[in-house]
Amino acid sequence: MLVVQKYGGTSVADLDRIRSVAKRVISYRERGDKVVVVLSAMAGETDRLLNLANGIDKSPDEREVDVLISTGEQVTSALLAIMLKCMFCDAISMQGHQVRIVTDSSYTKARITAIEKERLVSELDKGRVVVVPGFQGVDEKGNITTLGRGGSDTTAVALAAVLQADVCEIYTDVDGVYTTDPNICDRARRLDTISYNEMLEMASLGAKVLQIRSVELAKKYNVPILVKTSFGEGPGTLVCKEESRMTMEKVVIAGVTYNKNEAKVTVRKVPDKPGMAAKVFTSLSDANIVVDVIVQNVSKKDKTDITFTVPKVDAKKAYKIMEKTAKEVGAEGVSIDEDIAKVSIVGSGMMSHAGIASKMFTVLAEEGINIEAITTSEIKLSCVIEGKYGQLAVQALHRAFGLDREEVEEER
Amino acid sequence: MLVVQKYGGTSVADLDRIRSVAKRVISYRERGDKVVVVLSAMAGETDRLLNLANGIDKSPDEREVDVLISTGEQVTSALLAIMLKCMFCDAISMQGHQVRIVTDSSYTKARITAIEKERLVSELDKGRVVVVPGFQGVDEKGNITTLGRGGSDTTAVALAAVLQADVCEIYTDVDGVYTTDPNICDRARRLDTISYNEMLEMASLGAKVLQIRSVELAKKYNVPILVKTSFGEGPGTLVCKEESRMTMEKVVIAGVTYNKNEAKVTVRKVPDKPGMAAKVFTSLSDANIVVDVIVQNVSKKDKTDITFTVPKVDAKKAYKIMEKTAKEVGAEGVSIDEDIAKVSIVGSGMMSHAGIASKMFTVLAEEGINIEAITTSEIKLSCVIEGKYGQLAVQALHRAFGLDREEVEEER
Repeated sequence: MLVVQKYGGTSVADLDRIRSVAKRVISYRERGDKVVVVLSAMAGETDRLLNLANGIDKSPDEREVDVLISTGEQVTSALLAIMLKCMFCDAISMQGHQVRIVTDSSYTKARITAIEKERLVSELDKGRVVVVPGFQGVDEKGNITTLGRGGSDTTAVALAAVLQADVCEIYTDVDGVYTTDPNICDRARRLDTISYNEMLEMASLGAKVLQIRSVELAKKYNVPILVKTSFGEGPGTLVCKEESRMTMEKVVIAGVTYNKNEAKVTVRKVPDKPGMAAKVFTSLSDANIVVDVIVQNVSKKDKTDITFTVPKVDAKKAYKIMEKTAKEVGAEGVSIDEDIAKVSIVGSGMMSHAGIASKMFTVLAEEGINIEAITTSEIKLSCVIEGKYGQLAVQALHRAFGLDREEVEEER
Repeated sequence: MLVVQKYGGTSVADLDRIRSVAKRVISYRERGDKVVVVLSAMAGETDRLLNLANGIDKSPDEREVDVLISTGEQVTSALLAIMLKCMFCDAISMQGHQVRIVTDSSYTKARITAIEKERLVSELDKGRVVVVPGFQGVDEKGNITTLGRGGSDTTAVALAAVLQADVCEIYTDVDGVYTTDPNICDRARRLDTISYNEMLEMASLGAKVLQIRSVELAKKYNVPILVKTSFGEGPGTLVCKEESRMTMEKVVIAGVTYNKNEAKVTVRKVPDKPGMAAKVFTSLSDANIVVDVIVQNVSKKDKTDITFTVPKVDAKKAYKIMEKTAKEVGAEGVSIDEDIAKVSIVGSGMMSHAGIASKMFTVLAEEGINIEAITTSEIKLSCVIEGKYGQLAVQALHRAFGLDREEVEEER
């Protein structure tokens, strides 16, 4: 087996934890696997370095920020290689410019364009564990780049894709992907498997286990990702293709997600003619405000309401912009509601199963929860509801769709 | 003018100090100079990183140690580039692998074999300040290497040599090279100039301002080094060729140095036949003990005494080895004296001036100081004396050779 393992910042936060990582790597070597290890910086280190840069300049030069923050991963990669060699396991660290992990030149948010695998393969063939700092690369000219927050996941998946690894293991501080946030619903259950598409919906909706880009990449190159905890054993969650998953288990709904960091804005009675929606959303994107849910219903008397959600921090700004836009387009007015929650169910088989949507609406109704807006995609169904009902809605849906664990105490 | 400036760890210890460095660099740019800046890691950072490595393994893998500790200079180079750009001075950092500063593969103590200057020159021609981390390089295969303690001085001088810079300025926490240690003799005087050879003797004898290797390199490529303080103004000390110096000032003795970290070992009545000295010193080098002064006087009755000094930390070990060696070669015995000081006068013109040696001996005699051993080189004359007289000897010699400053208060 060729295995790529990625460890996050809390898994390499000090020498004791780095020792645990080394022990795990060695156990894989001992069963005969080839291992590439991708590491994050020690927990807190990237922020420490960024604070130095921000202490100089609010918007420090991005090329130099990448030179600065890429050192965090360089440090952990060297420390793990030292640890492995000290434990009689041959190892070598290879930085982004040594592998070469080539990216575009978009400093602080670069995208990988190519990975040269020759030297990697040659070191693996010598029986060495190769330790690669996550998050960093070089552009065509050899300038140091970084991939953005959580970029180490992407490094790991990209390496697994190029090396055609059997699996990409992502070690983190949770033991897998859950059906919903265990902080909200104590009956949340670890999923054995989840499809790439479901994971994409889960991740973007708030289950922050994997960087979205890494899942997109894994989907593109069909790299199986196994999410596991680095603090113990346990099977983890396998993120893989739809088909593989469907043969393995037969749940329709993979999880319930929850987001209460958004606000709802409604532009009332917009004249129903071409170009109106464009006007509304262009003015928002010009102000760099990201819009999430968008709902426009059928019109009445040539007027229609346009409702959308934005991050709460941008709500006031969006409201002011909309007041201006409303006048320009001849709409009646704008209202805003910051006390909302968005509850979604995610599942690949959803659209091919009749009754999922009606079941969701029924469950919410039975709890006395009014639905303020609805959107759907192929594998996701979201309802915007009053903020105070968010947690209740998650618990009710989780139970209704059969996601609750049987034995809370025993499995924990 | 093309100027290479090097700043030590205390000069970049925090953002305020890095701001001071940036201001100085900008003042040079404003007068039209091209500037390359070489930086050390923040004071204490290299030790912090080494402690991490040593927390894993007493002798950590050296390739990985270099990957680890080279990050310290990478951080400061990025921070200075950010600072310069924030102050509207165009700048770019270039790491060892980007410049390329090519070294051999002797990790933790690599030697520079070549520097590619094309990209450096091209960035300078664009009007940019180029910030290069000191201490680090890459070998032919692209592995990261470091040059050993104080290696940033060597980086600076090597860059100055390759770029044919007009001067290599070394900024440190002292304002130049002194005639002797100001802590011992408050009349110590800053030298305006000193020759490469004198500097080499001064440095190795304890006036730790510049890394010896950097002075050797500067001598080889005739790079003028200006040692200055980064905490204020002041002319500093110019380290340059003999001729330049001799035309500038006419002192014969450049300085007085002092070392009390050695112990004296004497092997008594060694049979005076070929191979005896070789036996004595081979046994020491086999034990990795570095010998400094060696004195062997003419023999009496086919027996001779061999005296040498070793670092105090190695004294006990050397004594034990010598007891064994003494038996093997048929010597009478071994004695050890840990309470010694070595006082030296250094000066290029010394050997061509009659009376320097006798003057030194007379000065010491007048102070009632007995001389236990004497060695000489072309530009140095050292006496081993009883430890307690060390400081007195330095002060007396400093005065006698006309090195005292006239006005202590005024010039301070």
